[in-house]
Amino acid sequence: MPNAVVRSTEDRAPLNVALLGCGVVGSQVYRLLTEQSADLKARAGAPLRVVGLAVRDPQRARQVAVEAELLTTDGLALVSRPDVDIVIELIGGIEPARTLLLAALKSGKSVITANKTLIAADGTELHRAAREAGADLYYEAAVAGAIPLLRPLRESLAGDEVRRVLGIVNGTTNFILDRMDSSGADFSAALAEAQALGYAEADPTADVAGFDAAAKAAILASIAFHSEVTADDVYREGILSVTAADIASARTLGCVVKLLAICERCDGGISARVHPAMIPRDHPLAAVREAYNAVFVEAEAAGRLMFYGAGAGGQPTASAVLGDTVAVARNLLAGLRGPDASTYAGLPLVPIGDARTSYYVQLDVADRPGVLAPIADAFAQHGVSIKAVRQEGRGDDANLIIMTHTTREAALAKTVAMLGAMEAVRNVDSVMRVAALEDE
Amino acid sequence: MPNAVVRSTEDRAPLNVALLGCGVVGSQVYRLLTEQSADLKARAGAPLRVVGLAVRDPQRARQVAVEAELLTTDGLALVSRPDVDIVIELIGGIEPARTLLLAALKSGKSVITANKTLIAADGTELHRAAREAGADLYYEAAVAGAIPLLRPLRESLAGDEVRRVLGIVNGTTNFILDRMDSSGADFSAALAEAQALGYAEADPTADVAGFDAAAKAAILASIAFHSEVTADDVYREGILSVTAADIASARTLGCVVKLLAICERCDGGISARVHPAMIPRDHPLAAVREAYNAVFVEAEAAGRLMFYGAGAGGQPTASAVLGDTVAVARNLLAGLRGPDASTYAGLPLVPIGDARTSYYVQLDVADRPGVLAPIADAFAQHGVSIKAVRQEGRGDDANLIIMTHTTREAALAKTVAMLGAMEAVRNVDSVMRVAALEDE
Repeated sequence: MPNAVVRSTEDRAPLNVALLGCGVVGSQVYRLLTEQSADLKARAGAPLRVVGLAVRDPQRARQVAVEAELLTTDGLALVSRPDVDIVIELIGGIEPARTLLLAALKSGKSVITANKTLIAADGTELHRAAREAGADLYYEAAVAGAIPLLRPLRESLAGDEVRRVLGIVNGTTNFILDRMDSSGADFSAALAEAQALGYAEADPTADVAGFDAAAKAAILASIAFHSEVTADDVYREGILSVTAADIASARTLGCVVKLLAICERCDGGISARVHPAMIPRDHPLAAVREAYNAVFVEAEAAGRLMFYGAGAGGQPTASAVLGDTVAVARNLLAGLRGPDASTYAGLPLVPIGDARTSYYVQLDVADRPGVLAPIADAFAQHGVSIKAVRQEGRGDDANLIIMTHTTREAALAKTVAMLGAMEAVRNVDSVMRVAALEDE
Repeated sequence: MPNAVVRSTEDRAPLNVALLGCGVVGSQVYRLLTEQSADLKARAGAPLRVVGLAVRDPQRARQVAVEAELLTTDGLALVSRPDVDIVIELIGGIEPARTLLLAALKSGKSVITANKTLIAADGTELHRAAREAGADLYYEAAVAGAIPLLRPLRESLAGDEVRRVLGIVNGTTNFILDRMDSSGADFSAALAEAQALGYAEADPTADVAGFDAAAKAAILASIAFHSEVTADDVYREGILSVTAADIASARTLGCVVKLLAICERCDGGISARVHPAMIPRDHPLAAVREAYNAVFVEAEAAGRLMFYGAGAGGQPTASAVLGDTVAVARNLLAGLRGPDASTYAGLPLVPIGDARTSYYVQLDVADRPGVLAPIADAFAQHGVSIKAVRQEGRGDDANLIIMTHTTREAALAKTVAMLGAMEAVRNVDSVMRVAALEDE
């Protein structure tokens, strides 16, 4: 059996790296490749040399000094250069990243990317291109930044059965919800603070509407359940409709509201969804503050695992990119590929209506004797079991707070529609999922 | 470049697995190899078939049904069988595990082990044997059970600089300290409860004296800092001297006491140590209850990461063993080896006297004016900076509680010796480290 690991690196030719994009992450990757070149050489087995950097505007000021002769605006020419071994893509979004990476893979380059949008949309095609070319495709940085998550899921738990992955994978929305919880601010005030501090973009849609988290959920579900899952397969609700009143209600129930990405086995298939949910304050995920990320994994034999760390930012993301780069370099020197996408299970996606969760429902009701009976009956008619009921306030301010047992989404939706049409219910004030953290 | 990943597994011959040991972990590994054989085959690329099980007593009742013809008492013959591809060692301890694994490696078998004692003592020799034979040596389960930790440290952070690894890596002592904190029990009562619940052995020395944690610290330090570190290099204090009064003092300071394994860069070398320390209650490690494990990693670019999960137990440990087994199987089918031990940095170990930490010191002092001046002077003479002083009680019960800034261990030890000899100090009641969780 050949010894695939290189220890003497003195006489190894450098591996040539092309960088696509030199923004917040790209500039940190470039800096670390340069500053830590001696350590990286020792770990990878050969020097890693940046031979080109594709950018949109070569004149633009950058966070790090880049040799001018490395810069090019012609990404396609760069990834096709015969002397390039490894392509690192940090542009983001579908195009031109997709075209550049397919071209890189087709010409046999191994690819590292932090691009969750692209992987969640076109992962199958990219994996196929990598396979056909005998090249590597690594994307640890695409989910939860610096937190080692895809490699543990793919490799450490390869002998186990993952039951559920449940996580906070978007730092922007976690920052906003954390501020709403700690200061009582409403959504727009918390968003403005996040924008002022650089945690949210000027156009925050991708984060607050859950698109970013849905792409990450698709990648997590694919790996955890050995199946093809795209972002479009993921049910998605953002945090735009979360009110200060919802957060206050959660607080009285001993809960916090988090935007969760949930991927779980369900009825022989996969339920993958992103939505706000209440979780008990004593759950480890509740302690994830500000823009941090954390992912809970429940596996058959391993039990409950949690991975916590910075989910974004130039340096943390660059750390994950460089970890992948060292792995790819080792593979190249050994003449082999890392683990491929594993989709052997081919599990179907389960519609959101068939997903199961507990619910918190707050109703503005007429405060009179007998109001509870028809409301309880509406739940019963749809097979939704009530766990607890509490009335708050009296008279015009009377509120009914109902917690359900775990139930099908579709059954709850029908129940809520019926409640909304009832004469005794003045308004359905709030409907929020409560994450089922234990098997019930 | 060859495509090293196998997708069609129909025509692959099985990989033959020899198990050494069939106790709590071994029986779970056997069960999972049997029950999940279809999934494991799809993930590994070929069927994994147990062809022999070496045990001390074939007649003994086991947790799982094992075919009698698989059992043997001759481990050496088993690991030398030409049809064996992979050896999984779950005996524990130095001998006979060491002899068996060296024999296995020398005959070219790849090895997976959960044996922290052996790896921490003889890792260098075992790695050398693996390298010379072109075989794999994997031991994710040796540290923190099911928590994927060695693979992320070795691979995900391969492009980063680890500054510190700080963790709770022994479930038994964490259970005991957690009970002492939550119920006020003293050490022996908490130990008795741990023994009754199966969290502690009848002879608890390996756990409570810190040997188990020291072995794990050696393995973590080796990988994090790319250097050779053995258990003997690790400074070790167990929890035998932690009193209910220490726990109560920690509580009044907003801290909990945990047995920590700390590996950090220090003066161009490595400080590796295991000792009880106070940590603030709002630190994520403080929330690690009962027999759970968690490890904090601070890296230059990635920032602060935490890995949390079950640190022991048959099933969690088996999950880690099987993850390694799938990796080794893939390597075998591709004709290659996984990442080797990386010891290129060759950093020296720093003596405990040069390690830096903050301290909590409680003194029983004469309650009279002017007592503080000579005490403060004793700290000053050794260059130990005082962060806070508080007097509790009056008269005969007067106690002085002193928190220091980060200081050299040797300086504090000399200070404490001087304090103990002072006329104004009736007794040095307690000296405990406070984990420096932030750079000061």
